[in-house]
Amino acid sequence: MQKNSPLEVRFNQVIRNVPDFPKPGILFKDITPILADASLMSAIVNQLEAELAKEEIDAIIGIESRGFIFGALLAQKLHKPFIPVRKAGKLPFHTLSESYSLEYGEASLEIHTDALQKGMKVLIHDDLLATGGTAAAAGRLVKKLQAEVAVFSFLINLSFLPGFHNLEQEFGVKPHYLIKY
Amino acid sequence: MQKNSPLEVRFNQVIRNVPDFPKPGILFKDITPILADASLMSAIVNQLEAELAKEEIDAIIGIESRGFIFGALLAQKLHKPFIPVRKAGKLPFHTLSESYSLEYGEASLEIHTDALQKGMKVLIHDDLLATGGTAAAAGRLVKKLQAEVAVFSFLINLSFLPGFHNLEQEFGVKPHYLIKY
Repeated sequence: MQKNSPLEVRFNQVIRNVPDFPKPGILFKDITPILADASLMSAIVNQLEAELAKEEIDAIIGIESRGFIFGALLAQKLHKPFIPVRKAGKLPFHTLSESYSLEYGEASLEIHTDALQKGMKVLIHDDLLATGGTAAAAGRLVKKLQAEVAVFSFLINLSFLPGFHNLEQEFGVKPHYLIKY
Repeated sequence: MQKNSPLEVRFNQVIRNVPDFPKPGILFKDITPILADASLMSAIVNQLEAELAKEEIDAIIGIESRGFIFGALLAQKLHKPFIPVRKAGKLPFHTLSESYSLEYGEASLEIHTDALQKGMKVLIHDDLLATGGTAAAAGRLVKKLQAEVAVFSFLINLSFLPGFHNLEQEFGVKPHYLIKY
């Protein structure tokens, strides 16, 4: 997206910065005012569609739980399967699991073993790119199922953190985002 | 929805029953094959729109996290604000909290204090109605904000459990659902 495009201006007017969440020193980007603006939501989904329409994509993964929102909207817009990647223990069928580091300890993400077929080109969506740890775990799940990470898609890239670089390094694709801070 | 409507037939062909999840004796209704069927997803959202179009609704709540999927799709379809109700500690701004019973112990749901305005008519969505505990907690959050629960909307009603009755009793509205088991 072009710098200072009309969508970027609206996005910045509406997003809320919450200081010291989830802990002191972090300025949290709260997207709930965006979700509450139906016109802006629709503009965002249209923009994602326009920018991603050229990509060859067979399925869209949304990462639990905020990634479910625009992930599902984008999947419907592009008329593609929506695949949830969830926290450990939430998916009922046979799963593969991949752990990733949190600041203290680690967590893991899971995907159903029949969620993707070999060779499928997959878009992985989450709302925000920070260090890229969860998105990378989702990407590894895609690869374990012998499918391909075609696109990482985020609404927001926190460009002072190494997520963009980390994902490009590991998966060989430049992450797509609408807004950079 | 009419019994044995074409949508209900397709839904039943695609949904997966997973025995003994999350624990022995429970037959879990796995909607992930539905999410992976873009045409069926779109038919479901159209059906929800058709059946709910007559309702006066100002905002749509999706309950974390599966309720985010069709909640967001329905909000966009009806061009209404989407309001996430989340598990404790996830929403960054000022919140109200409401606890509900689980089989062992309890959990709580939260809403942002500025998510709804007084008198708004709200649709609360989740994918599945079982005992109605989480939906009732979301309903109480709506009432705490002096807004009104206009509709409870589910994809699936497990009618051998008391959720439908419990919600009708407490909130005075009959829950809406597409499929009953």
